[in-house]
Amino acid sequence: MRKHPARRRVVPPPYRQRLAALRAEIAKRELDGYLILSRMDQYWLTGFTGEDGLVLVTRRNVVLLTDGRFDEAADLQAPFAQKVLRKQRTPEVNAAIIRRYRPGRLGFDPAQMSLADYEALKKHVRPTRLVPVAGTVPAMRVCKDDGEVKATRRAIEVAQEAFERVRRWIRPGRTEREVAARLEYEMRNLGAQGASFPSIVAFGRNSSLPHYEPGDVRLKKGDWILVDWGARVGWYGSDLTRMIWPARPPRRMVEINQVVREAHDKAIAAARPGMTCHELDRVAREHIASRGYGPQFNHALGHGLGLDVHEGPRVGKDTQTVLQPGMIVTIEPGVYLPGVGGVRIEDDVLITKNGCKVLTSLPIAQP
Amino acid sequence: MRKHPARRRVVPPPYRQRLAALRAEIAKRELDGYLILSRMDQYWLTGFTGEDGLVLVTRRNVVLLTDGRFDEAADLQAPFAQKVLRKQRTPEVNAAIIRRYRPGRLGFDPAQMSLADYEALKKHVRPTRLVPVAGTVPAMRVCKDDGEVKATRRAIEVAQEAFERVRRWIRPGRTEREVAARLEYEMRNLGAQGASFPSIVAFGRNSSLPHYEPGDVRLKKGDWILVDWGARVGWYGSDLTRMIWPARPPRRMVEINQVVREAHDKAIAAARPGMTCHELDRVAREHIASRGYGPQFNHALGHGLGLDVHEGPRVGKDTQTVLQPGMIVTIEPGVYLPGVGGVRIEDDVLITKNGCKVLTSLPIAQP
Repeated sequence: MRKHPARRRVVPPPYRQRLAALRAEIAKRELDGYLILSRMDQYWLTGFTGEDGLVLVTRRNVVLLTDGRFDEAADLQAPFAQKVLRKQRTPEVNAAIIRRYRPGRLGFDPAQMSLADYEALKKHVRPTRLVPVAGTVPAMRVCKDDGEVKATRRAIEVAQEAFERVRRWIRPGRTEREVAARLEYEMRNLGAQGASFPSIVAFGRNSSLPHYEPGDVRLKKGDWILVDWGARVGWYGSDLTRMIWPARPPRRMVEINQVVREAHDKAIAAARPGMTCHELDRVAREHIASRGYGPQFNHALGHGLGLDVHEGPRVGKDTQTVLQPGMIVTIEPGVYLPGVGGVRIEDDVLITKNGCKVLTSLPIAQP
Repeated sequence: MRKHPARRRVVPPPYRQRLAALRAEIAKRELDGYLILSRMDQYWLTGFTGEDGLVLVTRRNVVLLTDGRFDEAADLQAPFAQKVLRKQRTPEVNAAIIRRYRPGRLGFDPAQMSLADYEALKKHVRPTRLVPVAGTVPAMRVCKDDGEVKATRRAIEVAQEAFERVRRWIRPGRTEREVAARLEYEMRNLGAQGASFPSIVAFGRNSSLPHYEPGDVRLKKGDWILVDWGARVGWYGSDLTRMIWPARPPRRMVEINQVVREAHDKAIAAARPGMTCHELDRVAREHIASRGYGPQFNHALGHGLGLDVHEGPRVGKDTQTVLQPGMIVTIEPGVYLPGVGGVRIEDDVLITKNGCKVLTSLPIAQP
C-alpha cells in the first residue's frame, strides 16, 4: 500500500475566503453542495491543477475526485481536500461518490457540463437532484484579489521582457513561425509555463487577419509586424498586441495606426467602475467609426483576463456587465483592411476605485 | 462593402468523402442535418480552423457560421461552404440562421454541447427539433486515411528530431523547464505549430508523477530523465515518451525499466485488428502485474491519436472498442514508485490489416 503524508485539514488563504464565498452562494440558493467542473475553477477554489479533477463542495466538505495519475499532486496542492481516487471518470462512478455525501440539491454550472454528462449524472446521482446555477464561480473570479493582480503583473513582465529580447533578434529573412517560436521560448526561459494562447505573428498584409496563424513567410525589408502574445505564469495569463514598424510604412497603415491608437487611448482614459462594458466598447468603436473605419473594427474591444485568457467580462457591444474595481480587462481596438494590412494595439488594464491602471508598460511604437 | 473572392462550390477531397459519410449517417438516422460543434470535427469535415465556428451540414448545404475575425480564413480554407458572418455567437443568433435551412430533425453530439447551450438552442430553433446522436464525427475520425497517416508521420518526425537535438544539449545544471522550453522551440523551428500538449520533463524522482509539470529543479549528475512530448504539425499530433539514463542508475530503476520495456514490446507484438482495446491493455497490464508492479501502473495503456492528442479509442480496461486498420494509438505502459521514480515508454502505432506498424522510430535507451 502507498502511504500518503498526513492531510492538513486547515484551509489556507485565499482558498478559505473563496470557499466561504461559494458556500454563501450555496446557502443563498438553498443548495446542499456545488459541483466544480472547470479545471481553472477547481484551481481557484482549491489549488489543485490536475487534468482529471472533479470538486464537490458541500456545507462541510471539500471533496476532490481524481485518478491515480494525480494522486501525489492532490496531496501536494490541496492537502485540505478529501481525496477520492477513482478508476474511471464516468458519470456512474462520479455519481456513486457524490451520493456518499447525500447532497439533496446539488448546484452546477450548465455552461460547463455537456448534455451527455448531465443526462447520465442526473440518472445515477438520484436521490440527489442536479440544479443548474449559471456562472457561479466564473462570476466570483472576475474581480481579482491582490495576489491575482500580482500574478497577472508577473505574466505581463515575462511577456514584455520576452518581446524586447525577440524584437532585437528579428531581422529580414526570419519567418513568422520562427519569431513566434522564439517568443514562446524566451517566455519559458523567463519562467512562464508557456504562452497563454498561440502567439500571432503576422508580417505585412497578413496582419489583416485578426486571428492569423504564423506561417513560413519570410520578413522582407519594409514589412510591418503585428504581434499578439501573452505568457502564462503561475496559471495567470497576460495578453498584449504590439506593432513593429519599418522605416517607411505605407501612408494607409500610418493612418489606421493613428486611428487605432486614438481609440485605444480614449478607451483607457474612459475606463472606470460603474460604466458598462458596452459603454466602454462604444468609446473606441465610435471613434473608429467617426474616421470611416467602423466596419473594419470587426471584434469586441476586449475581454476579461485571469486564469483563462478569455474570461468574463466580455467588453463588447451588448455586454451589460458593469465594470468593477478588481476586474482586469484587455483593451484591444483594431482596424483590418483585407489585402492591405491591419493594426491592433492591446494593453491589460485593472479597473480601480476611480478609473483604471494600465498594467502593461511596453512602449507603443509609432510608425 | 468588403468584396469576397468568388466561391468555389466544388468540394475537394478528402472533404467530399467525409461529408458523404456524414450525410449517409444523416440519412440512416432520418435526420435533416447535423450540427458540427467541435473545432477539430469542423476542420476534418471542411478544412476550416477558425476559433469561432459552427458548421451545419444538411442534405444539400454546408453552412459555416463564424464571425468577422475569420472572414478571410473561411474563404481561404473552406471556399465551398456557405459562409454566414454573425455578430454574436449566442444560441438565439445561431438558431435564427439554422432556421433558414429548415431542418426538421437536426442531429448533434451531446458530448460536445453544454446543457446551457442546449436549452437555449432548443428553445430558439423551433420548429426544428434537436436530436442528440452521440459520437458521430469522432467515430468517423478514429480510422485515418493515407493523408492523415502521412500527417501523423510528419508530426512524429518533427518530435523525434527535436528530441535528438535537445538530448545533445542537455547537461547538468539545466532545469526541467528549460529542457521543456527548448524541446518546444526546436519543434517549432522544425515546422510544428507547437507542442501537441504541454511537454513533461521530469528529473530523477519527479518521474514518479505520471503527469508532472516541469519545474525549476536543476539536473544533477546521476539523474535520469523522463520526457513525454509531441509535436502538432498541420493540426495532427504525435505523442512519445522516452527515458534518458545516466551512467549508473539505481538498480530499482533498471528493474522497473525492464518490466515496462517488456510490457511495451509485448503490447506492440500483440496489437492487431479484431482484438478489443481492453484485450490489448491487458497484455501489458498482466505482464506488469506478474512482476509485482500491478498497482503502480495506474493509467490506461494508451489512447487514439489524431487531430486531438487524446481521442478515441481509449486503450484501457473496460474499453470494448475493437481495433481496426487505420487506427493510430499510443502504447505507453508505465510504472511509478512514489519517492523513488517512474518509467514510461511510449510509441505511436498504426493498426494495419494484419497487425500494427510502429510509426515512431526513435531508439529506446537502455540503462
